[in-house]
Amino acid sequence: MQKPGRIYLVGAGPGDPELLTIKAARLLDRADAVIYDRLVSDEILELANPFAERVYVGKSTGSHSLKQSEINTLLVHMARKHCHIVRLKGGDPYIFGRGGEEAEWLSLHDVPFEVVPGITAAAGCMAQLNLPLTHRGLATSVRFVTGHMQADAEPHHDWRSLADPDTTLAIYMGVKTMPVIAGKLLEHGLPGDTPVMIIENGSTPDQRHFRSTLGNVCDDLNRLDFDPPCMIVIGRVISLADRLSLPVVNLLPESTFDKNVTSDRPDGDLRYVHTA
Amino acid sequence: MQKPGRIYLVGAGPGDPELLTIKAARLLDRADAVIYDRLVSDEILELANPFAERVYVGKSTGSHSLKQSEINTLLVHMARKHCHIVRLKGGDPYIFGRGGEEAEWLSLHDVPFEVVPGITAAAGCMAQLNLPLTHRGLATSVRFVTGHMQADAEPHHDWRSLADPDTTLAIYMGVKTMPVIAGKLLEHGLPGDTPVMIIENGSTPDQRHFRSTLGNVCDDLNRLDFDPPCMIVIGRVISLADRLSLPVVNLLPESTFDKNVTSDRPDGDLRYVHTA
Ligand SMILES: C[S@@+](CC[C@H](N)C(=O)[O-])C[C@H]1O[C@@H](n2cnc3c(N)ncnc32)[C@H](O)[C@@H]1O
Ligand SMILES: C[S@@+](CC[C@H](N)C(=O)[O-])C[C@H]1O[C@@H](n2cnc3c(N)ncnc32)[C@H](O)[C@@H]1O
Repeated sequence: MQKPGRIYLVGAGPGDPELLTIKAARLLDRADAVIYDRLVSDEILELANPFAERVYVGKSTGSHSLKQSEINTLLVHMARKHCHIVRLKGGDPYIFGRGGEEAEWLSLHDVPFEVVPGITAAAGCMAQLNLPLTHRGLATSVRFVTGHMQADAEPHHDWRSLADPDTTLAIYMGVKTMPVIAGKLLEHGLPGDTPVMIIENGSTPDQRHFRSTLGNVCDDLNRLDFDPPCMIVIGRVISLADRLSLPVVNLLPESTFDKNVTSDRPDGDLRYVHTA
Repeated sequence: MQKPGRIYLVGAGPGDPELLTIKAARLLDRADAVIYDRLVSDEILELANPFAERVYVGKSTGSHSLKQSEINTLLVHMARKHCHIVRLKGGDPYIFGRGGEEAEWLSLHDVPFEVVPGITAAAGCMAQLNLPLTHRGLATSVRFVTGHMQADAEPHHDWRSLADPDTTLAIYMGVKTMPVIAGKLLEHGLPGDTPVMIIENGSTPDQRHFRSTLGNVCDDLNRLDFDPPCMIVIGRVISLADRLSLPVVNLLPESTFDKNVTSDRPDGDLRYVHTA
């Protein structure tokens, strides 16, 4: 039997194509095949070899996404067919990305693979707002938590452990379960005025955010109609928004250049444009 | 007065230059000045504009590193002198990188800045070993914790909260304080056979790692003489090392090509070389 190709489990970062790693971009450029999820944008796919086979395995409106077992089978199949396969996932493949499950399956089937880390959504979203995840005097640790729950079940967490005022909590997949999460954190002693930041579509042209408190965040989420993907960050670091300059200038990708924008740079470089 | 330049607080990732983001590489290429720390390697600095002024602010053997207040002052000074300044930090600037403190100071002095996230050491190191940070059934959250302590003090942590078997703990700056940390975690109920992985100089040519348990890790650290920078990862995800193929092949940077290496790729591409 022919030797199988190699699969690269690659993180695509939070959305901005410039937040891919150099390694991710190079592997995409050389790919024979790309297997990608819903959170991977067209701009990022444009970095792939134009002749690569592309397979979308995410959910689209009205239809189901592939089951994890089907994706696993597909990966092994692709490794028989191609030399250099990129399995592209939003953020980091190994933080709530089910990359470990794919890696287990590939190991079991003797398919060689390599993992390329990516900027995870919490880091990407907070950087956009100039807000740190840890800070002396405000947070000695940062914790990435899933808000996802099995059908009809509450997320299984040690809530007392999560309600730690010295830790920044970054909640992934938490929009729908926020009423449970906020309720449990309040019940276990995290103050209702603990600041919260919600970032929707962080680092993409559709980015929106708002600031709230643990006591008000569920009402605010409803009122403002924020939808996944959202990053929900809870903790005292958010209070730094009062002291840190807000980002008034964004570095936009070349494709969004527009002659209406003006530069604030002495050399008139139009890549540096005001977005606010 | 002249308008100040712009400062980019940029994450350099864990060590491998290919793990920089595309944005970080582009900003370095255009920099008038680069201010960098100890964990930023020469290979990474080579990506910077060769005409950029370079200022090292890390500790070197026998001498002291600049105090944070001195670095802050330097940043404002550089912004008066240059247009495009890159402040380069290992990993992510906003995860135990004191980036937030620099951002506060720049805000106070009306110096425009932007934050570019980087691959943090925990994600970079674990990906090198194919090991995930979260995994269904093994870890529903991952927590980045500092092991650093003020002189003569223990790290201030809610130890009961940290001793959560469903969470992966990634400890930064923990080599020296590991006896305290392991002791406290055991005392608060984390089992002595909880698996631990230590990665030294992750993603660099000097990378080493070993696997241990919470009960044995301090003895092992001494015996094997591991030095900072080390990532210490504690939790059930480490047990996946039994089921996951170990990375036998590494993608090496071009500069380390060597005619002694042989390719395992059908097309004989020498960039894919066995390192073990
Ligand atoms: C299945 S998880 C994948 C996480 C990914 N592996 C990572 O490391 O970022 C999807 C969740 O990530 C978060 N997320 C991903 N991209 C995001 C973005 N651009 N803005 C806000 N949240 C995002 C949201 O919480 C979303 O529900
Ligand atoms: C001051 S902290 C900076 C962390 C950085 N901002 C980040 O996000 O990775 C330095 C600590 O990061 C960890 N670290 C950084 N680079 C590492 C590497 N290549 N291998 C292992 N640990 C590393 C070590 O724990 C080290 O003591």
